[in-house]
Amino acid sequence: MNTVIDTILAHRSVRNFEDRALTREQIETIVRSAQAASTSSFVQAYSIIGVTDQKKKEQLAEVAFNQDYVVNNGHLFVFCADLYRHEIIGEMESVDVLPSIESTEKFMVATIDAALAAQNASIAAESMGLGICYIGGIRNDLTKVSEILGTPNRVIPLFGLVVGYPAKINDKKPRIPLEHIYHENEYNSEHESNVQELQSYNEVVQKYYLERTNGKRSDTWTSQIAKMLEKQSRMYMKGFVEEKGMNKR
Amino acid sequence: MNTVIDTILAHRSVRNFEDRALTREQIETIVRSAQAASTSSFVQAYSIIGVTDQKKKEQLAEVAFNQDYVVNNGHLFVFCADLYRHEIIGEMESVDVLPSIESTEKFMVATIDAALAAQNASIAAESMGLGICYIGGIRNDLTKVSEILGTPNRVIPLFGLVVGYPAKINDKKPRIPLEHIYHENEYNSEHESNVQELQSYNEVVQKYYLERTNGKRSDTWTSQIAKMLEKQSRMYMKGFVEEKGMNKR
Repeated sequence: MNTVIDTILAHRSVRNFEDRALTREQIETIVRSAQAASTSSFVQAYSIIGVTDQKKKEQLAEVAFNQDYVVNNGHLFVFCADLYRHEIIGEMESVDVLPSIESTEKFMVATIDAALAAQNASIAAESMGLGICYIGGIRNDLTKVSEILGTPNRVIPLFGLVVGYPAKINDKKPRIPLEHIYHENEYNSEHESNVQELQSYNEVVQKYYLERTNGKRSDTWTSQIAKMLEKQSRMYMKGFVEEKGMNKR
Repeated sequence: MNTVIDTILAHRSVRNFEDRALTREQIETIVRSAQAASTSSFVQAYSIIGVTDQKKKEQLAEVAFNQDYVVNNGHLFVFCADLYRHEIIGEMESVDVLPSIESTEKFMVATIDAALAAQNASIAAESMGLGICYIGGIRNDLTKVSEILGTPNRVIPLFGLVVGYPAKINDKKPRIPLEHIYHENEYNSEHESNVQELQSYNEVVQKYYLERTNGKRSDTWTSQIAKMLEKQSRMYMKGFVEEKGMNKR
């Protein structure tokens, strides 16, 4: 082990921050770290929007189920899949880039690029003693988010990332056992062994919640996930992304 | 700065590895690091497939434009967006999870989850003195990749990640200037300033290539990207992903 791996393994999402803004230097170090991530064929298909305007933070928090840490944090970043500048490149170089830009393949490229950058940002922030939390809740209403942040076509805000000085440290939830996430040479899709693995993981998760809540909460993982998936949330997404000119063909 | 940020900023893709396999302990540390990343609503919608079988590695290299580092490396991982176990959860909990699983929203969730995990894996590997390279080339033919790795419906192999002891260290390509990637409070979509930023970045990239190749290569960024986007590559992706039961509604 080493300091880097210790930092990575110590991660837990932080949802309570001290009232202390990040410095310009901290913000730039985080963004430079994000930019150091790999990018598919040097395409750099993402953008990062920092939000410091109080009103905009409140509007974004409203979109994200009123989570107050979207307002109260050291800094709020929004990571976007971004092919806007690539459309301009098409004009500059007189090349028809639209079929490519509008493809599902490039939507995946841009989404992956943005996520790799964001995870670098997260690890960099955590190494500085800061805490982080991803805010998928902004996807509740991306039409609104696009208006708030002024994003044009070919830009999809994917998630927020709040960063700040932790006021409260949460526990670390037990992950799916390594043997279940990690296959070797062939994916194990055998139904019965998958059910068994899920059942044994259920026991681990249930024990975690029971201990953490003095017996008040006893969810299993499968019950928790089933409840979440039963709600058909954000079903507008396909239409929204296509309307913004991505994932169309 | 600190060791973690130094590791992140020192990243360059490695494409030449020593003939030295990773140990089981190294592989497990990398996978555990991947698993420590944030995951949307605890959904853990990804899987990792390690490939050690020589024939499978060769088949995957063939898909990925015959890049020989897909065969010759310390270890080859394939990261997959994975909602297969979530479909089983629906059966176990008698809940109709299909509309949710088949949505564009959950396809994004699974893709982001996998990418966050992969970037943690990359940073962990690099902190151990190993080099890494993402292999987007496996997306040239995911039908073939699915056959080689036996992935079922609701699983999309997104990219490979080769890891190993570097035999050759490449230069670090200059990224888009921070001020262009990072916006504050509002996305700058003003056309003329975007063109100017691209032109000034072109000079940086061209200088980099000229210096690195003793004047033999003089691409600008926009010409390189336009050439890449002009090719309509992997246009089968939309159909493939839908056929696998994701990104459908």
